[in-house]
Amino acid sequence: MASNSFGEIFRITTFGESHGPGIGVVIDGCPAGLEFDRDFINRQMQKRRPGQSALTTARQEADEVEILSGVFEGKTTGAPIAMFIRNTDARSADYENLKTAYRPSHADYTYEVKYGLRDYRGGGRASARETAARVAAGAVAQLLLNKFNIQIFAYVSAVGAVKCPLPYTELPLREIYAHPVRCPHGETALQMQQLIEKMRDAGDTIGGIITGVIKGCPPGLGEPVYAKLHAELGRAMLSINAVHGFEYGSGFAGTIHPGSEHNDAFATGVGREVITRTNHSGGVQGGISNGMDIYFNVAFKPVATIKQTQQTINQQGEPVSITMSGRHDPCVLPRAVPVVEAMSAIVIADALLRHRLSRC
Amino acid sequence: MASNSFGEIFRITTFGESHGPGIGVVIDGCPAGLEFDRDFINRQMQKRRPGQSALTTARQEADEVEILSGVFEGKTTGAPIAMFIRNTDARSADYENLKTAYRPSHADYTYEVKYGLRDYRGGGRASARETAARVAAGAVAQLLLNKFNIQIFAYVSAVGAVKCPLPYTELPLREIYAHPVRCPHGETALQMQQLIEKMRDAGDTIGGIITGVIKGCPPGLGEPVYAKLHAELGRAMLSINAVHGFEYGSGFAGTIHPGSEHNDAFATGVGREVITRTNHSGGVQGGISNGMDIYFNVAFKPVATIKQTQQTINQQGEPVSITMSGRHDPCVLPRAVPVVEAMSAIVIADALLRHRLSRC
Amino acid sequence: MASNSFGEIFRITTFGESHGPGIGVVIDGCPAGLEFDRDFINRQMQKRRPGQSALTTARQEADEVEILSGVFEGKTTGAPIAMFIRNTDARSADYENLKTAYRPSHADYTYEVKYGLRDYRGGGRASARETAARVAAGAVAQLLLNKFNIQIFAYVSAVGAVKCPLPYTELPLREIYAHPVRCPHGETALQMQQLIEKMRDAGDTIGGIITGVIKGCPPGLGEPVYAKLHAELGRAMLSINAVHGFEYGSGFAGTIHPGSEHNDAFATGVGREVITRTNHSGGVQGGISNGMDIYFNVAFKPVATIKQTQQTINQQGEPVSITMSGRHDPCVLPRAVPVVEAMSAIVIADALLRHRLSRC
Amino acid sequence: MASNSFGEIFRITTFGESHGPGIGVVIDGCPAGLEFDRDFINRQMQKRRPGQSALTTARQEADEVEILSGVFEGKTTGAPIAMFIRNTDARSADYENLKTAYRPSHADYTYEVKYGLRDYRGGGRASARETAARVAAGAVAQLLLNKFNIQIFAYVSAVGAVKCPLPYTELPLREIYAHPVRCPHGETALQMQQLIEKMRDAGDTIGGIITGVIKGCPPGLGEPVYAKLHAELGRAMLSINAVHGFEYGSGFAGTIHPGSEHNDAFATGVGREVITRTNHSGGVQGGISNGMDIYFNVAFKPVATIKQTQQTINQQGEPVSITMSGRHDPCVLPRAVPVVEAMSAIVIADALLRHRLSRC
Repeated sequence: MASNSFGEIFRITTFGESHGPGIGVVIDGCPAGLEFDRDFINRQMQKRRPGQSALTTARQEADEVEILSGVFEGKTTGAPIAMFIRNTDARSADYENLKTAYRPSHADYTYEVKYGLRDYRGGGRASARETAARVAAGAVAQLLLNKFNIQIFAYVSAVGAVKCPLPYTELPLREIYAHPVRCPHGETALQMQQLIEKMRDAGDTIGGIITGVIKGCPPGLGEPVYAKLHAELGRAMLSINAVHGFEYGSGFAGTIHPGSEHNDAFATGVGREVITRTNHSGGVQGGISNGMDIYFNVAFKPVATIKQTQQTINQQGEPVSITMSGRHDPCVLPRAVPVVEAMSAIVIADALLRHRLSRC
Repeated sequence: MASNSFGEIFRITTFGESHGPGIGVVIDGCPAGLEFDRDFINRQMQKRRPGQSALTTARQEADEVEILSGVFEGKTTGAPIAMFIRNTDARSADYENLKTAYRPSHADYTYEVKYGLRDYRGGGRASARETAARVAAGAVAQLLLNKFNIQIFAYVSAVGAVKCPLPYTELPLREIYAHPVRCPHGETALQMQQLIEKMRDAGDTIGGIITGVIKGCPPGLGEPVYAKLHAELGRAMLSINAVHGFEYGSGFAGTIHPGSEHNDAFATGVGREVITRTNHSGGVQGGISNGMDIYFNVAFKPVATIKQTQQTINQQGEPVSITMSGRHDPCVLPRAVPVVEAMSAIVIADALLRHRLSRC
Repeated sequence: MASNSFGEIFRITTFGESHGPGIGVVIDGCPAGLEFDRDFINRQMQKRRPGQSALTTARQEADEVEILSGVFEGKTTGAPIAMFIRNTDARSADYENLKTAYRPSHADYTYEVKYGLRDYRGGGRASARETAARVAAGAVAQLLLNKFNIQIFAYVSAVGAVKCPLPYTELPLREIYAHPVRCPHGETALQMQQLIEKMRDAGDTIGGIITGVIKGCPPGLGEPVYAKLHAELGRAMLSINAVHGFEYGSGFAGTIHPGSEHNDAFATGVGREVITRTNHSGGVQGGISNGMDIYFNVAFKPVATIKQTQQTINQQGEPVSITMSGRHDPCVLPRAVPVVEAMSAIVIADALLRHRLSRC
Repeated sequence: MASNSFGEIFRITTFGESHGPGIGVVIDGCPAGLEFDRDFINRQMQKRRPGQSALTTARQEADEVEILSGVFEGKTTGAPIAMFIRNTDARSADYENLKTAYRPSHADYTYEVKYGLRDYRGGGRASARETAARVAAGAVAQLLLNKFNIQIFAYVSAVGAVKCPLPYTELPLREIYAHPVRCPHGETALQMQQLIEKMRDAGDTIGGIITGVIKGCPPGLGEPVYAKLHAELGRAMLSINAVHGFEYGSGFAGTIHPGSEHNDAFATGVGREVITRTNHSGGVQGGISNGMDIYFNVAFKPVATIKQTQQTINQQGEPVSITMSGRHDPCVLPRAVPVVEAMSAIVIADALLRHRLSRC
């Protein structure tokens, strides 16, 4: 079962609610001897932290990570690594009037029907605040990947109808975080920002697409059949709040091309390594990495919390109108970029360790 | 680990290769007392069977399921249910010339780099023949769902650029299997058929989109956070051979709408049940079913096996040209429809059982 | 993998080291709606707490449990329940001289050979302090079992060669905690105490046996084959520090009786329920509970930390003599009683939930 | 869940009933490139086969293993290995009169109360015939261990009150299979045989103890906390039909010795390797192997099927007397020896692979 766990070898278990004491994660299966760079972890946390810019929620959280276990003299010991991030700026009073009403397109109704009760404060466990724990865990995964020169990138490639006009191969991926929107194409980033501001000012929200890119992944990662590398990536992304779609390689667009165009011809690279001349496969063939770049798109719906008054029903089935005063992002994508990175890092770290088991 | 298993409670483990003795599955966790309808299972198998029509591979397999365990006097006993489907028409000689060459966009290279060797006959374990086991297991899951009046549908909504012009809500879902293409919109089905025939005659292949619809799913299924119902569905679909994308509800198209349009207002239905006036959420909110229809799209790339001569390399990294004589589908989608149904049924059966654990 | 997790449905994941910030646990899979009695949890913690009596280690820990998540308005929500117990009286300086030496019959050498490094302070993760987290989790499991009138008992039935002369059926199980030794047979408890004091004064240690009894367990719990109820109990007990043996029902002694004497005849009880006239089966048949009392014995070796000077080797393989100044129990059994109870409760809670999945 | 699976990395899933088509196993996680010695597997099967000698059941089964998948050109491919053993000599008519009666100390009642129905033919899934699948899987595990020079032994050390007078260290372990009783101490073996024959002639049965020994296990195997090596071994043994107890190293007898006697002093061996001067730890410290011999005892109760008439009740709770005519072993131990070996091999193979994940 373990609904709050992800990963088989490098396995995370998260806990915590939006308005409880805090959010945490236990990593079980991180190998021993990894240099544990706390500064790196905190830097990753800063990328997701609320209150960073005018584009994000006004909730202020320092999001400092307390290391509760698993690290000794600066290195991982093989014991579980527990990390905890306290909530400091939760305002539960904002939710008093939502105790009995079901917010549209939120998890209020479904949690209540499943569990018979719900923590109505800020969405409780359903809050995207849970992703803080993913970012902390993903940073540890990234430390492991660094040893193998595997690089993870993610950026906002669309906000509403504003789309980045270039593919990832033509973008400066090192500059993603230079702009608060986290799009490395300056002109597009500005348009995205303007759209987000417009939505925010209208009390509305907007979705978009994040593109993920994994470079330097060695061939052989991923398991055939049910734990295909792209299936694990897809599951990871679809588990992030507000995600409604995932595609990798040629994705949905690849469905209109004939096989004769779509097939990626094998060739030999400059270092005698196996390469493909095109990469419609998105770096994964038969569920296993082939050494080429892995790339994928993740679709985020607009945030459900809008400032406009909405009609809904309450627990008694009576129509009610609600207006939400909680602090929320008009567009979740900029802050979701480090979450996509984190989940990617966890998937690849897990596959990397798992691959050690393939041969005698 | 268990790379060849899927599901937590209703758990399947498949085995077998394209050109070995056969394909099989063990279902562990099917509750006792389920009436085991062998005819239904065989009917489901017939939907996926090769050699059904001129649109599919010429390989002829009866695909009769032998029940090896778990059933007594017509009912499941709670013991694991093992089913086996013998291979009878495998022609391994077709693959002799591919022993050392890597077929483009196949799993030849990645399996070899992962395992140090590979079963080159018909793709071995990477063959879509593995999905026969999924269909058998999915039929058992469907028998369980029948008791709860949960209905699973899947149909071909696009082949290449030929798209079904109507949404699922306006299609006669009971007529999906009336046409060999498995599209319930007659005019479109004909166009799809013509396109597939054209590709086949050119020795080429084409991909497309399958739409899945789940009706009658009670609210409360799915687990928050990592086992969200749509994440499990997505993972299930992405584990099917040739799938490159998954979206549910509003999907990628939903990213361009503001929250004020996208949110699904709650209301009270005729039977006092909770409904939503629109269903951009695709029947899932916060990862848990809300009682509305669940619907999703699955993108399939074109089959990699084409009749045209292709350039590639061999194990020594030398360029070689290959021509494939194996029998393959010009378009995998018609035969993938029952596979999408099967994986959907397994996901929902698993969630249904899991939901029994939610409350004290 | 998940080496630090136990249980399938009611699943615990523990973390923390003896001399780190503290010890914690995440429970994933506790059903929603359970009244969460914090006082009960703290009372259970007190039973295991160090520094309770002259028979235990002098280390002083309040062992108060901080609830980090999963509880709202006094009830479980279905979200993971995280609990944390801070270390306050760890004296790492006691272990400076043991940095490089391998303490006999401790985990120093094996951890180092496995992980390439080790946290030498108080045994790190190998410390029995980890069991504090089990007691906290076990208390939550017990709260669930209370709703079903399932009662868990454990008591010290032997310390060294001092054995309780009566079977559990003739002992006042409600009085176990009346004596610091946790043996409900007063005379024997005194003899045990004297033996422990003698060992303590000699700077030595002694092992013994804890007997566990589960009353009120409904028939049908446990899974055939690999998750037999007694196999899960055995695994649970064998995972407790210092445990070297487990037997249930007639156990090792049952091997000398012929089947004609050993078989438990079925009969009908006063309430028309099925009973057995004898209970050599220990309440479990074919791995599944039959409604009779479940009882078992757990063998604990003597604590490895003795005050006497010992010969050993260091990391360089050189002979060294060591004397340990850490604070330890001369006999671990009295404080292990609540740990045996806790692990029993977790096993039964898990089986109880799992049983909901047995039938259609 | 996966009640019919065992092992995390080297993972087996078994299926089948005593009187169904047969018994099978799927091994998922066997690394690729292992030379697959079919003769060795069949030889192991012969050790467990019924009808071998006058000491065993008269049921005649060839127990030939059909390999259904996972092997290509004599080597494992990394794909799941499925093996199937057909039942050929099942006589279901023997059980017609037991349809409604609960055999004492069998799983009839507990299966029925759990599942609401049961396969009454030969115990169905509860039959020890399931262990045939374990032996097949264990043989594959042993092939893997052979590459690492790890040797597994098991022998009958007690039948009823007849006990082998020497410890394993003084016995010729290579000669275990020279005697049908599988005790390598000739004089004792004869006494055991006489006792078994006496019980058989009286229509009665008898239990005993099997001792397991693992030699050549490298240090570092096993996981701390819940997957301690001895906890996994214990769970494996307790999952075997009729097992009522498990102890390793000093076991229950070790509870009476003070720590100063029980501790195993470390020393340096002839090859500069770390050894201990005594081995009360049974080769496992803190749950991790230390390189010394691993040894343990497994207690088997007497077989429940006796020829004598017994009193019991039926499904209606009415008293009935039954006489069993099925063919059964008067003493299960000789045929359980290869099962103990098999489960040991699976546990060690799993730990061996898992250990690859310990360090960066």
